[in-house]
Amino acid sequence: MRIGVLTSGGDCPGLNAVIRSVVHRAVVDHGDEVIGFRDGWKGLLECDYLKLDLDAVGGILARGGTILGSSRVQPSHLRDGVERAKGHVAELGLDAIIPIGGEGTLKAARLMSDSGLPVVGVPKTIDNDIAVTDVTFGFDTAVGVATEALDRLKTTAESHQRVLVVEVMGRHTGWIALHSGMAAGAHAIVVPERPFDIEELARRVGERFDAGKRFAIVVAAEGAKPRPGSMEFDEGGKDIYGHERFAGIARQLSIELEQRLGKEARPVILGHVQRGGTPTAYDRVLATRFGWHAVEAVHRGEFGHMTALRGTDIVMVPLAEAVETLKTVPADRYEEAECVL
Amino acid sequence: MRIGVLTSGGDCPGLNAVIRSVVHRAVVDHGDEVIGFRDGWKGLLECDYLKLDLDAVGGILARGGTILGSSRVQPSHLRDGVERAKGHVAELGLDAIIPIGGEGTLKAARLMSDSGLPVVGVPKTIDNDIAVTDVTFGFDTAVGVATEALDRLKTTAESHQRVLVVEVMGRHTGWIALHSGMAAGAHAIVVPERPFDIEELARRVGERFDAGKRFAIVVAAEGAKPRPGSMEFDEGGKDIYGHERFAGIARQLSIELEQRLGKEARPVILGHVQRGGTPTAYDRVLATRFGWHAVEAVHRGEFGHMTALRGTDIVMVPLAEAVETLKTVPADRYEEAECVL
Amino acid sequence: MRIGVLTSGGDCPGLNAVIRSVVHRAVVDHGDEVIGFRDGWKGLLECDYLKLDLDAVGGILARGGTILGSSRVQPSHLRDGVERAKGHVAELGLDAIIPIGGEGTLKAARLMSDSGLPVVGVPKTIDNDIAVTDVTFGFDTAVGVATEALDRLKTTAESHQRVLVVEVMGRHTGWIALHSGMAAGAHAIVVPERPFDIEELARRVGERFDAGKRFAIVVAAEGAKPRPGSMEFDEGGKDIYGHERFAGIARQLSIELEQRLGKEARPVILGHVQRGGTPTAYDRVLATRFGWHAVEAVHRGEFGHMTALRGTDIVMVPLAEAVETLKTVPADRYEEAECVL
Amino acid sequence: MRIGVLTSGGDCPGLNAVIRSVVHRAVVDHGDEVIGFRDGWKGLLECDYLKLDLDAVGGILARGGTILGSSRVQPSHLRDGVERAKGHVAELGLDAIIPIGGEGTLKAARLMSDSGLPVVGVPKTIDNDIAVTDVTFGFDTAVGVATEALDRLKTTAESHQRVLVVEVMGRHTGWIALHSGMAAGAHAIVVPERPFDIEELARRVGERFDAGKRFAIVVAAEGAKPRPGSMEFDEGGKDIYGHERFAGIARQLSIELEQRLGKEARPVILGHVQRGGTPTAYDRVLATRFGWHAVEAVHRGEFGHMTALRGTDIVMVPLAEAVETLKTVPADRYEEAECVL
Repeated sequence: MRIGVLTSGGDCPGLNAVIRSVVHRAVVDHGDEVIGFRDGWKGLLECDYLKLDLDAVGGILARGGTILGSSRVQPSHLRDGVERAKGHVAELGLDAIIPIGGEGTLKAARLMSDSGLPVVGVPKTIDNDIAVTDVTFGFDTAVGVATEALDRLKTTAESHQRVLVVEVMGRHTGWIALHSGMAAGAHAIVVPERPFDIEELARRVGERFDAGKRFAIVVAAEGAKPRPGSMEFDEGGKDIYGHERFAGIARQLSIELEQRLGKEARPVILGHVQRGGTPTAYDRVLATRFGWHAVEAVHRGEFGHMTALRGTDIVMVPLAEAVETLKTVPADRYEEAECVL
Repeated sequence: MRIGVLTSGGDCPGLNAVIRSVVHRAVVDHGDEVIGFRDGWKGLLECDYLKLDLDAVGGILARGGTILGSSRVQPSHLRDGVERAKGHVAELGLDAIIPIGGEGTLKAARLMSDSGLPVVGVPKTIDNDIAVTDVTFGFDTAVGVATEALDRLKTTAESHQRVLVVEVMGRHTGWIALHSGMAAGAHAIVVPERPFDIEELARRVGERFDAGKRFAIVVAAEGAKPRPGSMEFDEGGKDIYGHERFAGIARQLSIELEQRLGKEARPVILGHVQRGGTPTAYDRVLATRFGWHAVEAVHRGEFGHMTALRGTDIVMVPLAEAVETLKTVPADRYEEAECVL
Repeated sequence: MRIGVLTSGGDCPGLNAVIRSVVHRAVVDHGDEVIGFRDGWKGLLECDYLKLDLDAVGGILARGGTILGSSRVQPSHLRDGVERAKGHVAELGLDAIIPIGGEGTLKAARLMSDSGLPVVGVPKTIDNDIAVTDVTFGFDTAVGVATEALDRLKTTAESHQRVLVVEVMGRHTGWIALHSGMAAGAHAIVVPERPFDIEELARRVGERFDAGKRFAIVVAAEGAKPRPGSMEFDEGGKDIYGHERFAGIARQLSIELEQRLGKEARPVILGHVQRGGTPTAYDRVLATRFGWHAVEAVHRGEFGHMTALRGTDIVMVPLAEAVETLKTVPADRYEEAECVL
Repeated sequence: MRIGVLTSGGDCPGLNAVIRSVVHRAVVDHGDEVIGFRDGWKGLLECDYLKLDLDAVGGILARGGTILGSSRVQPSHLRDGVERAKGHVAELGLDAIIPIGGEGTLKAARLMSDSGLPVVGVPKTIDNDIAVTDVTFGFDTAVGVATEALDRLKTTAESHQRVLVVEVMGRHTGWIALHSGMAAGAHAIVVPERPFDIEELARRVGERFDAGKRFAIVVAAEGAKPRPGSMEFDEGGKDIYGHERFAGIARQLSIELEQRLGKEARPVILGHVQRGGTPTAYDRVLATRFGWHAVEAVHRGEFGHMTALRGTDIVMVPLAEAVETLKTVPADRYEEAECVL
């Protein structure tokens, strides 16, 4: 068989581990040929690819990033390109395409699949917001990086007798905030799923100081928002240069908390560091298993599906289901966290 | 309510996180009192304990070890002590006991429960060999430590053009070997579940050298054994001092591989470093959730059960089920690993 | 003897290691008594202290922050307090004071020393800007944290085909930028000591893209500034809330580079994470040696001095010298770095 | 100019950083050509080499091992090969050779230099035992790895109420033991420079238990030996297979301590993990500077010398001096450590 692989969307630790695993399983065990499209869907649309043999994937397992490159493509551009993609697939004699990516990529994968292309998807997101899988690779690494930063920030907050408001990734869901906050023993966590009341939050943090503690750590998902009317809120938007303004939840929360508590409060924005670099062992194992099972699905002809983790098993779920809903932090998980902070 | 907690068995990253979580959930949310027995079951049998309030568990979330101490107690000693334990529980007015421990501890927990004590167990093992839960805390940290070591050893093996045989923990099961070997891209993994054939193993490693590679990493679970008749094997046992001899699978494998391959082969024994120190974020979250749910089970009166992870949910399973079988590495997981090494 | 210790100024990995070392050396080897003043000079002025015995410093060697707390005190406030400090020192029967801190603290130490108090200083700064010592503890940890972040950011910059401008600590000197930039193989480093020309910087980064590379990392010390006239520059200052505006060199540089290069450029601000948490082994050893030698200086009556590293030796230098000049990045060190980026 | 580089001896984190730095400085700034000999001196003797341009050293800065390979060559073999080496140098038109290696390599470098070859050495050893430089790259990484392991082992030792005897590298000198032991707060350190008295050591560790502590960590350099007559000591040697027996100081010490103290004692042998993998930021900076200055020395024609760190400066020292004496742990450094353990 001949299989084409591509990686699309934002960086995510574990992408290379999937690529390597696909190649090992396909080439060594099945005697397949594998090619990799450069820069995501763009490579498929422009027929830009390289051959992936064992040497090409040597030493990449623990490396962050993706040896294939990635890019974001407009959905409309993709829709217009379906026929072109089909042409290239035919031309190259491909029996299957394995796109590795997040929500946008999986939607594109479904589009391609619906139009008749033999597609097996592999989900990827550091945000952990894909509903049909227990977890995706990249998330564990992101949580690990955020937790290590929080561990460090605690001693500084304590020495300086401050409130630190630490912004972690998560525009639409609070998974990274929830897990890193629990793991590091943050004193409050705010997530997009639960608009916060600023007075309540200030009271909560204030009680900690009243009890004689000298610092507090608040973890805020970047997409966290106040309950309407709870406080003035700057949604960000573009600045005069046309750049995102990074008003930022952390910055606004520190100002509001400082005013209410009379304690120094400072924002820390972890940023891109959460989505790059060497993956944790957990993510490498999960990514490797996803790659392995994607190849198996190809050989079984189980197209239009993607790999997913359920308990300890890798299962295949229809792409149609995969992108229906976002997996948000449910109320009981949030309560668990809140109670042990 | 009044709850007693104890930790028993070998060290395991996450023990303190469970203790802290039990105290936070019980004291803050339910207004309970919590005491901790010192040195495992011994503390219960000897009525040796300390009060656990919020201050007592401050700053312990990320710390390895257990603030309560631990010890191994003979099962017979425990059986004889049941009545004494019941006496102390009555004396102290305890409504529940939460023992945190591995297979031996859970068996003891069942014994205590069967004799009428209100017990809710929390499973703990770096070995990941408890069948009724998807995973236990401590395992992720152990795999992470082993993987980091393997990452380092790869460059040395390559520079020295050697075979390194790396022994990781796992007397009865090969989970740590399997996951760390997959995560680090080892070239062969041997586990207790699949007695290896030394000729086959040597052939496999030899093919790598034939293909022009200059080194190889073999990961061996400490309990891995050759197929009967495959090679002479020293089971270890006591030396003249009465100490364990540490003949060791890694040592024997390196000798055998060196003889067969004509390449330098060296053993590395990772040892205790896998079971101590700060837990990963993953283990801290899991341990915290276990502690939280153990308290909830106490309040629901769901005794004779222990916490378990199923998918992303924490569920309660009967202690009776918990200790029936060991969770071993199934054939398909081993094949997955083997194929992408 | 009776010795008082205090920590003052911003957080710095290794403070606890010094405190512990002072106590071990003084108490165990000399039979001294040690007390610790709370929250820096404030504790001395207000006679707020605790006894420091071996138990008090148990387990703190690897912990970030300071068990004594810290604070920043106005120099004028200190000058007015000298007599009060002398009174407390007499009252408590102290034979020596060991203040651990940065430039401000060492100036205060000199003031106290000049007024007749028996002072032995220990220098501390993550910025590495104290001229009379080869290096101070805290710096190695800060560089390590920044380097690890840069390692991670590289894969993301590459996947996203971006310029990342990473802001590290260093208001007045570029040591952290220089070392982390060299260690991580950044593609340009800007430091306060060498005002940059934005056109030259853009050209340098642009050449990289012209040569076919797909990303670039620029490391900027927070105090880096453009050559006058090179570009418009917002010095920051207060916003409408009276808070620092964090205009930030990284943010401004990314806008300027994006406009000139036509490549996406994004700022990342590492912030406080560089100054907290567990110290590296290097910093623990240096901090421990500083504490040890400070106690020896006390016993030799070598007051008005502070510990310093020269090569591999710890020597004592007069406090008067210590604060005269800032140690800036010399031209040849900058050239070394620039040439191998 | 045309420069040849080679790496020789055991693995050491930072080798690739030197290679990369030599290439960057020589190729980019001087317009030189650089070639790398494969597998150390062997490559020079057999004229086995590859071209090293910027692409060849891309992405290797943070990688352990050496892209050139390494090997150990018999001194006699080298002596016989001098003429052959000279022939190859002439043939290839080389203006300089930069060998990177430890004591053996530097001796060979001197031999080559004395016979008229233009040699500039770069010292390398994780053991830190080269007298003419304050420190060599690789040492900081080795100490960091050992310290991290000791941090982890402490919690296990405490939970299990044991003595752990941890063997670190250092056949002839105790630098790694000294620094990692100080950094981790070990309770005793034994080094080759100070033969220990087993009774005294047992007494010291015993006092700790008498004081109510429940565990102890002893760090032993692999070359540590008892004072003659202090205890029976097995020097190791070959076993029946002709393999080193690894009797090991840690193993023997644990037996002796267990017998004397009546406490469980266990050996842990860290092994090769100390000499591989990604270098610390400190080692990357030092290695990079060594490479840079080696190229400068070549261009100044300063042959027969090697790079060395003195304070914060890189200086050139004659190869003749470099290998005269081993840098051992001096008495005062050992005392410093002992007093704060």
